[in-house]
Amino acid sequence: MPIQIIPITGLPIIKEGDDLAELTVKSLKEQGLLPIEKDVYVFSHVIASRVEGKQVDLEKVEPSQKAEKYAEITGKDPRLLQVILDESRVVRRIGPGVIITETKHGFVCANAGVDKSNVPGETIVSPLPDDPDITARNIRTRFNELAGVNVGVIICDTHGRAHRDGEINVTVGASGFEVIRDRRGEFDLFGYELKVKRTTVSDELSSAAELVIGQSDEGVPAALIRGYDIVLSESGSAQDIVRGREKDLFL
Amino acid sequence: MPIQIIPITGLPIIKEGDDLAELTVKSLKEQGLLPIEKDVYVFSHVIASRVEGKQVDLEKVEPSQKAEKYAEITGKDPRLLQVILDESRVVRRIGPGVIITETKHGFVCANAGVDKSNVPGETIVSPLPDDPDITARNIRTRFNELAGVNVGVIICDTHGRAHRDGEINVTVGASGFEVIRDRRGEFDLFGYELKVKRTTVSDELSSAAELVIGQSDEGVPAALIRGYDIVLSESGSAQDIVRGREKDLFL
Repeated sequence: MPIQIIPITGLPIIKEGDDLAELTVKSLKEQGLLPIEKDVYVFSHVIASRVEGKQVDLEKVEPSQKAEKYAEITGKDPRLLQVILDESRVVRRIGPGVIITETKHGFVCANAGVDKSNVPGETIVSPLPDDPDITARNIRTRFNELAGVNVGVIICDTHGRAHRDGEINVTVGASGFEVIRDRRGEFDLFGYELKVKRTTVSDELSSAAELVIGQSDEGVPAALIRGYDIVLSESGSAQDIVRGREKDLFL
Repeated sequence: MPIQIIPITGLPIIKEGDDLAELTVKSLKEQGLLPIEKDVYVFSHVIASRVEGKQVDLEKVEPSQKAEKYAEITGKDPRLLQVILDESRVVRRIGPGVIITETKHGFVCANAGVDKSNVPGETIVSPLPDDPDITARNIRTRFNELAGVNVGVIICDTHGRAHRDGEINVTVGASGFEVIRDRRGEFDLFGYELKVKRTTVSDELSSAAELVIGQSDEGVPAALIRGYDIVLSESGSAQDIVRGREKDLFL
């Protein structure tokens, strides 16, 4: 059976307090679809942050001395640097045009995930939600209330990679399913036991979703992936993907 | 329109000299499908290497002193270490249970992409094809001969990531389309020009494909992604994703 990647079209411009699950169900209905068990709903972090009012107006930010210093190094706005530092545990790399930090959630990425595009008002920036797993869980709970089904929910962001060019979509928040599929102990085509394979299915689902999120000129901020057999789990969390510093070979 | 991820089912055990495009077209026909323009075909590197006879019998490998030394550090078979070194330009990280190298193609990954599973015979290992872009191009040419359509072809492998746990599927060879979509200059939902977005769509397509490749217990080694609007290009190459050492912040 093919897996389908379905764009959630016709969403209004999302604003603080909006009910993303309800708006998504409405959009699906207009496409003649209803939520079903094991659907995976993937939302861009920008709309998730906006729903939670997690936006910062740079006009109201007073940059610290450190932010001023980093602004000089990177050539970026010192107020933006302040927001990035506020969202970060530690700076991993810094240079002209680039700052890569470890966010307070543990993700290693450029600008601590603070996004400038897709945000109304030139001085408004959009950090990640404070706890994207909770964001995902709240949306999942609403899907269950509205449609009576167990689904997976992902909050995604586009990240660069240490050793490959360009960005891909990855998971920053997840709820409802096991984000890593541990295939060790399974057998391959020839009956050999797999020794090492642990697949981060939620990152693969996030990247799949971006094929419709990123492709559209109309700004589709969400996607449904239907037909992938997620392992439902109450404890699924994007924190399972965070590599602790003690295991990081590229500190 | 939804994008579809279609498993290529019913392939025989692939052997040296097999025609992957022809076998794929046959498999599609059995599913009632024909190749169409802008289809993307994703093949696991293991079957691509096998078609090209790119397999090594460890019984016939004489490990060098260096391979013996690295075997002690990693706890791996010295003959496997020799194959890994033969496939690599430089070792990036090494420790107990792990060796990360820069392959001769420029990919930074564990074991230089040399794969042990899915290979018949316990001592047979499967390196990446010598030039996975050429592998992809040859398959693409055959699709055009067989079905008269322009498609994209990807050779994929599962890689770990520097800063995230678990593995995801990425592109090691590509042909027929632009692997990176440069969105700089496009406009977002609010009319703001995107300044930085370069999306590695071929890695996202590879990850999407793994949702059917990796999920099956029956060992599906290939997938078709239909409905994504690739930008056809004669010069598309996985080398576009290779980050030169001069740009690598995590050497």
